[in-house]
Amino acid sequence: MKLGIVGGGQLGRMLGQAAIPLGIRCVFLEPGASPSAAVAGEVIRADYDDRAALDALAARCDAVTYEFENVPVDAARHLAAQVPLFPPPQALEKAQDRLVEKRFFQAQGLQTAAFAPVDDEASLADAVAQLGLPAILKTRRLGYDGKGQRRLSTEAEVPGAFAALGGVPCILEKVVPFEREVSVLAVRNGAGEVRTWPLVQNIHKDGILHYTLAPAPETGPATQALADDYARRVTDALDYVGVIAIELFQVGDSLLANEFAPRVHNSGHFSIEGALTSQFENHVRAGLGLPLGATDIPIPHGCANLLSTQPPLAKLLAVESARVHLYGKSERPGRKLGHVTVAGVTLAEVRDRLGRLLTLA
Amino acid sequence: MKLGIVGGGQLGRMLGQAAIPLGIRCVFLEPGASPSAAVAGEVIRADYDDRAALDALAARCDAVTYEFENVPVDAARHLAAQVPLFPPPQALEKAQDRLVEKRFFQAQGLQTAAFAPVDDEASLADAVAQLGLPAILKTRRLGYDGKGQRRLSTEAEVPGAFAALGGVPCILEKVVPFEREVSVLAVRNGAGEVRTWPLVQNIHKDGILHYTLAPAPETGPATQALADDYARRVTDALDYVGVIAIELFQVGDSLLANEFAPRVHNSGHFSIEGALTSQFENHVRAGLGLPLGATDIPIPHGCANLLSTQPPLAKLLAVESARVHLYGKSERPGRKLGHVTVAGVTLAEVRDRLGRLLTLA
Repeated sequence: MKLGIVGGGQLGRMLGQAAIPLGIRCVFLEPGASPSAAVAGEVIRADYDDRAALDALAARCDAVTYEFENVPVDAARHLAAQVPLFPPPQALEKAQDRLVEKRFFQAQGLQTAAFAPVDDEASLADAVAQLGLPAILKTRRLGYDGKGQRRLSTEAEVPGAFAALGGVPCILEKVVPFEREVSVLAVRNGAGEVRTWPLVQNIHKDGILHYTLAPAPETGPATQALADDYARRVTDALDYVGVIAIELFQVGDSLLANEFAPRVHNSGHFSIEGALTSQFENHVRAGLGLPLGATDIPIPHGCANLLSTQPPLAKLLAVESARVHLYGKSERPGRKLGHVTVAGVTLAEVRDRLGRLLTLA
Repeated sequence: MKLGIVGGGQLGRMLGQAAIPLGIRCVFLEPGASPSAAVAGEVIRADYDDRAALDALAARCDAVTYEFENVPVDAARHLAAQVPLFPPPQALEKAQDRLVEKRFFQAQGLQTAAFAPVDDEASLADAVAQLGLPAILKTRRLGYDGKGQRRLSTEAEVPGAFAALGGVPCILEKVVPFEREVSVLAVRNGAGEVRTWPLVQNIHKDGILHYTLAPAPETGPATQALADDYARRVTDALDYVGVIAIELFQVGDSLLANEFAPRVHNSGHFSIEGALTSQFENHVRAGLGLPLGATDIPIPHGCANLLSTQPPLAKLLAVESARVHLYGKSERPGRKLGHVTVAGVTLAEVRDRLGRLLTLA
């Protein structure tokens, strides 16, 4: 079987690596030179919206997926008309616009932080009056890893904030004093079967995922059940196929849905070693109609990103239980170059090992 | 970094897959068309003893290893003169001759079953008189997966047995009534650090590994310590670098060394999912001077070979916790086409899942 993947970054690379043992070959559509994913399959070098290249990809593959959520929806629909495409284009549409996404969450019965649309300076003032401060102004589209957003802590920061984000349609979100940021990873297949991994905790730094603890500490069965319910509602509503990640704020016994990624996600990288089946393998399995794999996490794991600069491989591997994943990318400020996963018999052991990693990374 | 691998079969494939996340690329030397390992690196298509090809491999790589023990020792020495080669050629020499191997075990203080050299019909008769029956007559060289051996249960089977094996130098080994067949996998680096995985039990069928239980049931700390001591003695004596597998018969509190493989081994395939670091990754790490990874097995695993015919992928994956590894090989009687690993909270759960797999495989 052949699986097409729009995008040739590290998520494509790890999807390709998960496919090889199953006897599945990946074909990547990627305009960039020497893409990260090239080690794990063939590459069609073309723009993401190149119709001829999309047609070639569709013709060669049994199914097609994508590894980033800003795939042009038109390109996705063009593909979906020719070949099974997963996740479905409607998932992209919801995920590409923060306002649409939040309203979608609410329509499915998920709790969210309070929010209001912002289309100009006047509606920003109205939104601030309605929600209060602190709040975060975000562009509705094309934000990721903390880009395209500004925190508004005082009234003085409000004027000009809309213009500073480019004067594009925005959303203002109330800042919620949450206990922790968690995410639920789920996979759904075409028959409607859903499996979720245990909740993980995400610790961000400068808007970029810094490290993940899996499973998330201090999240009991009730919180997990609520997250599972959220995943079920969201994926059923989208007739979803593949892996989804929903980022959540844990506030007491509540979970506030922040955003979702219609793809494999950085907070699920731990699952390569940490879960009985990784997010990458289950995404492949779901899209090709194969049975879903077990999502248990036998012992605690932690996963830290390698950002901007590449620490010496030998130093990373010297941390007990460390498993290193390099993406084959050159150094650049803020760029994700790889990640490292550690295991421990206890969460304390994981934290200790993560701590040693983070002095290097 | 680049790692050269002599051989392009499934062991090469899995070594290559383990190398990718570490940013290490593999180059395989393999004469066969469309080798299993081609998905995980480049291939130099040439015979294993092609000097020009060996030179090209050495020139392109930081270190070279091999994935089968019948690499010509001359070729190994030729490589070792140009590039770090691991495991060292002296390990090949010992492993390629069953008589040399058994004597080597004894010289290192390892217990073995009683054995005697057989060079003709007369010395076979002497060996039978000395050891008694049942015994197994094996060619000293080139036997694997039960090939090149005959079980002698009665005196009537003795005459002609030597001729039936081709009249080549043989060894007669006394059959030992053992409790179970186990193997110890170990990895040693150039600094002399040795790590062993917990002992695993191997169940054979028609001379070929059928399935593995990891860790081996009913092997306590004393048995593990004895196996660790064996691994230490053998690898120190060979100034070994890389992964080694020593096959052992457990007889009460004793372990009788049967043979060793100077490479990654079928009984270690479980370690991809079952151990904190796989045999493949630790072999790569050892050979390239990187820190060795943790060898713990957090929860029990079982691993079954897929032989001769390929069961439908979907049926294999439907067994809870199953992880499938296909080697990209065509069907042929007795051929190893892949393996499947299952996990369980208890050994009973593993056995149950293995049982379901074995009805398919």
